[in-house]
Amino acid sequence: MRVRIDLGYDGSRFHGWAAQPGLRTVEGELTAALELVLRHPVRLTVAGRTDAGVHATAQVVHLDVEEESWRRLPGRSDRSPQDALRVRLGKLLARASGEEGPGDVIIAAVGEVPGDFDARFSALRRAYSYRLDDGEVPGLWNRRRAWRTEPVREADMEEAGALLLGEHDFLSYCKPREGATTIRTLEQLTCHRPDSGEDAGLVRIDLVADAFCHSMVRSIVGALVEVGRGRQPIDWPARRLAEARRDRGVILAPPHGLTLERVDYPETGYGLQARAARRMRQHSQGARVALTPDGSRQ
Amino acid sequence: MRVRIDLGYDGSRFHGWAAQPGLRTVEGELTAALELVLRHPVRLTVAGRTDAGVHATAQVVHLDVEEESWRRLPGRSDRSPQDALRVRLGKLLARASGEEGPGDVIIAAVGEVPGDFDARFSALRRAYSYRLDDGEVPGLWNRRRAWRTEPVREADMEEAGALLLGEHDFLSYCKPREGATTIRTLEQLTCHRPDSGEDAGLVRIDLVADAFCHSMVRSIVGALVEVGRGRQPIDWPARRLAEARRDRGVILAPPHGLTLERVDYPETGYGLQARAARRMRQHSQGARVALTPDGSRQ
Repeated sequence: MRVRIDLGYDGSRFHGWAAQPGLRTVEGELTAALELVLRHPVRLTVAGRTDAGVHATAQVVHLDVEEESWRRLPGRSDRSPQDALRVRLGKLLARASGEEGPGDVIIAAVGEVPGDFDARFSALRRAYSYRLDDGEVPGLWNRRRAWRTEPVREADMEEAGALLLGEHDFLSYCKPREGATTIRTLEQLTCHRPDSGEDAGLVRIDLVADAFCHSMVRSIVGALVEVGRGRQPIDWPARRLAEARRDRGVILAPPHGLTLERVDYPETGYGLQARAARRMRQHSQGARVALTPDGSRQ
Repeated sequence: MRVRIDLGYDGSRFHGWAAQPGLRTVEGELTAALELVLRHPVRLTVAGRTDAGVHATAQVVHLDVEEESWRRLPGRSDRSPQDALRVRLGKLLARASGEEGPGDVIIAAVGEVPGDFDARFSALRRAYSYRLDDGEVPGLWNRRRAWRTEPVREADMEEAGALLLGEHDFLSYCKPREGATTIRTLEQLTCHRPDSGEDAGLVRIDLVADAFCHSMVRSIVGALVEVGRGRQPIDWPARRLAEARRDRGVILAPPHGLTLERVDYPETGYGLQARAARRMRQHSQGARVALTPDGSRQ
């Protein structure tokens, strides 16, 4: 049976999501904890692979669990298997972190899902946030998740960002992978300076796309900050986009300002969405054809 | 010459302030970084020793620096020695943290102070905050610095806390040290649930005293939470205080909810304040006499 886990993490001390021998990774820690609790090998599929230092408040993974292990989970408690798994994973991960308190991974929810649910390919869209701190005295916690920059004009950045919206080949803003397209649909990009809430005093950039290529958010943010500081004109990021080439002009914003905030899935029809997304993202470079009946990504 | 350093830290990964062989401590990391930059041995005096897991946004230390080292600090840059030390320490500490981004220690300010400034004994008062998270879905960052509790009534906690204000022997809420008094003046204790700001949704307890004994804030918070959950009547923490004895009734709130927020110093007369504070805190247990001309702690 298939299980979905929603989790969050402070990426500061992780070498990213993907398991690597000898390095502390979120996938590595989570897999080890799951195998200890479930007593069988586990393979995780993730919604958004994050780089070293990148945070997530709402990452999603799926895995397949043997019926026998699932039934055994509650032990002698009156908990559901879901609750038992959530609580035991939380404790193991907190202990493994070597920190006081809850550690740097949080298990937010555990649930059973249909067998065609795919954490990666069933996703409709991903939302990321990027925080800048261009103020005088950065707070302790802000500083750990915001890029410290010279003062920026967030209105200029939003204007520059708006020119990137829509379906484009984002090659200028991606590290391309062999045999994978760099065409994406950027659905939303906003820059604002919240007056209240936990981001008060910071500049927050919010981006939503069907999916993001590797390093896409950080490259876009790097370009927008050049505009915000007045070093480049407002149409510069869009001109770079139009060139559709990977060159040394790429400015990569540091990872610690970036957070995966949300992954959206359809209400039903996971398998349908997964087949469409697989087809789209795996076609060869430059095949810029409409791949869904209405030519859109959703 | 005497130098004052203001710093903040996320205590999650530190075994507290005080240097301990083989363990990662704030004092240990800061001393190592200072000795690398200054090229002479360094001894730190701190305003508030914090336990493992406790955070600080405004910790204060002093140290003595050799004139020659101080003059050499700017190197060929046009920075002041203060700025040069702040920037170099920040970089060394970030690198030593092994994290992406700014690391878990922040050097907020470096400055020259008069030779009679004492980070510990010249302080007039310390302010600590303690955060509780009694909500449904804790945020990632809140969770790392708040104690997760059952729902509490913050008004009851504030009422119970008000009964502790003033000068008392806080033995019931302290781990006493040989030859040191446990008499302190609790100047302020408030509990509220901020509507906005970075603590929105949390319950925040703010405490101010001339100084706090070891584990005093966490013991007081532990007692207040018993009241907040309705397990003890409102006058229970005050009754425990009046008993003035250390027993198994102590409930120690976990360290990760606690943050040192502020240390206040007089405008001038550091030495005078330091002599008065030393006399007061080091007199023997129970010598409950007025130690300053007007009988107050400030």
